[in-house]
Amino acid sequence: MARYQVVLAYDGTSFLGFQRQANSRTVQGIFEKALRQLGWTGRSILSAGRTDTGVHAAGQVVAFDLNWQHTPLDLCNALNAHLPPDAAAQRVLEVSGDFHPRYAAKARRYWYQVITAPQRDPLRERFAWRVWPAPDLEQLQSAASSLPGSHDFAAFGSPPKKGGSTRREILKAVWNKAGDMLWFDVVGNAFLFHMVRRLVAFQMAVGQKKLPPQALSEQLHTPGDTSAVGLAPACGLCLGAVYYTESYRDENYLDDGFYNRN
Amino acid sequence: MARYQVVLAYDGTSFLGFQRQANSRTVQGIFEKALRQLGWTGRSILSAGRTDTGVHAAGQVVAFDLNWQHTPLDLCNALNAHLPPDAAAQRVLEVSGDFHPRYAAKARRYWYQVITAPQRDPLRERFAWRVWPAPDLEQLQSAASSLPGSHDFAAFGSPPKKGGSTRREILKAVWNKAGDMLWFDVVGNAFLFHMVRRLVAFQMAVGQKKLPPQALSEQLHTPGDTSAVGLAPACGLCLGAVYYTESYRDENYLDDGFYNRN
Repeated sequence: MARYQVVLAYDGTSFLGFQRQANSRTVQGIFEKALRQLGWTGRSILSAGRTDTGVHAAGQVVAFDLNWQHTPLDLCNALNAHLPPDAAAQRVLEVSGDFHPRYAAKARRYWYQVITAPQRDPLRERFAWRVWPAPDLEQLQSAASSLPGSHDFAAFGSPPKKGGSTRREILKAVWNKAGDMLWFDVVGNAFLFHMVRRLVAFQMAVGQKKLPPQALSEQLHTPGDTSAVGLAPACGLCLGAVYYTESYRDENYLDDGFYNRN
Repeated sequence: MARYQVVLAYDGTSFLGFQRQANSRTVQGIFEKALRQLGWTGRSILSAGRTDTGVHAAGQVVAFDLNWQHTPLDLCNALNAHLPPDAAAQRVLEVSGDFHPRYAAKARRYWYQVITAPQRDPLRERFAWRVWPAPDLEQLQSAASSLPGSHDFAAFGSPPKKGGSTRREILKAVWNKAGDMLWFDVVGNAFLFHMVRRLVAFQMAVGQKKLPPQALSEQLHTPGDTSAVGLAPACGLCLGAVYYTESYRDENYLDDGFYNRN
């Protein structure tokens, strides 16, 4: 018996979120089902965090104990033979028996993808929020520049436990552009519930001049009620990576970009 | 009554190709259904060309005659209110009454997207062919460089009419790379049936060193039987644009890139 860490990618469209639920198709549910076909008899896999209904992942991390006689690469291939088309293991590592993907995580990375187009785009709206009129990129970048550092994000989400701290440290927060696509790349030690989607909706309001440029930094210093700004849609959000070493503190490492996923 | 030209995008995954068929979901079928809800009573729309089952489009072009009292933009919005989520009008123009989207076309552009990854990628395989081991980019670029010009493409596809010419002019053919994604960007006056998918499969065999670097240019000078190389999967192919002016002959115009779709 050994503990394995699996980096897992999924298209969140047809899942009712990550967490197992009776009678609903969830990521945890289909993963545990695949794992049982490989002889797993555990009660529950461990994960780096839950993703909401419709949220995608390129780098979710799960762990479990399994009696496996072959290599980790064999385990990766075997999992992919049993997982449905909308979920796939990206790589598998054998880890120490006390590894927990949530407690061991040093940082998390999310991507939020926006397309700016006047009409629906059937090729891209599965993985992006379509916004029109197009927001001002400089305003978005200016708003994002106030995010790095340690702040009280009480205005942007709730903590996992009632009464828990709402302070989080953001390590990187930038908007990138390619053609009519924009994406928000954010790395933090941890995130509150709905925090990335609220930050994106708030920044979009700034980018569309519905809120003044300094509104975001004001929220971080004197939290108010941002509920009127709401949540950006789940389909634009992707859990990009979970980091277990300090590598993410290296600027060059984080600059490897949106497409260089592996 | 006036003639309208519509640039149409669709996710080809759930269509049995473009052309209307009894009892099958096709792009033409759902488009004509939407158009009928706007009062259209025609027999058949015109199109720039058919796409195969599973092939996507960012810039298919269709045309029809319609009695419409509002602006072309209103027509675009009305069509999108009636089209299903996997198809959408991108823009609408009023054109002269004799405009035919196939006969008037001066050139067509296709994109073929490849991802190079050892494991399945549920976030990208809807719109790409996953290839592993990764092909050599320089070999791909070298093979593609033999394509521009006028050649007999008999080895790579069949003409629309039996006995018709298999000579076609390629204006641009390049491979681009971003992270672990590669895409083939090809512009030609017209293409034979299955030609782009055969060219991609052939180039991939060169890129993976299964065929020598000069194999493609040899095929263009002395056509042989390439059926052993086969077809690249439909899901990676996208009809990017159809050109009705000579603008595509301007290098800068074609350099506007994969993402700058509008």
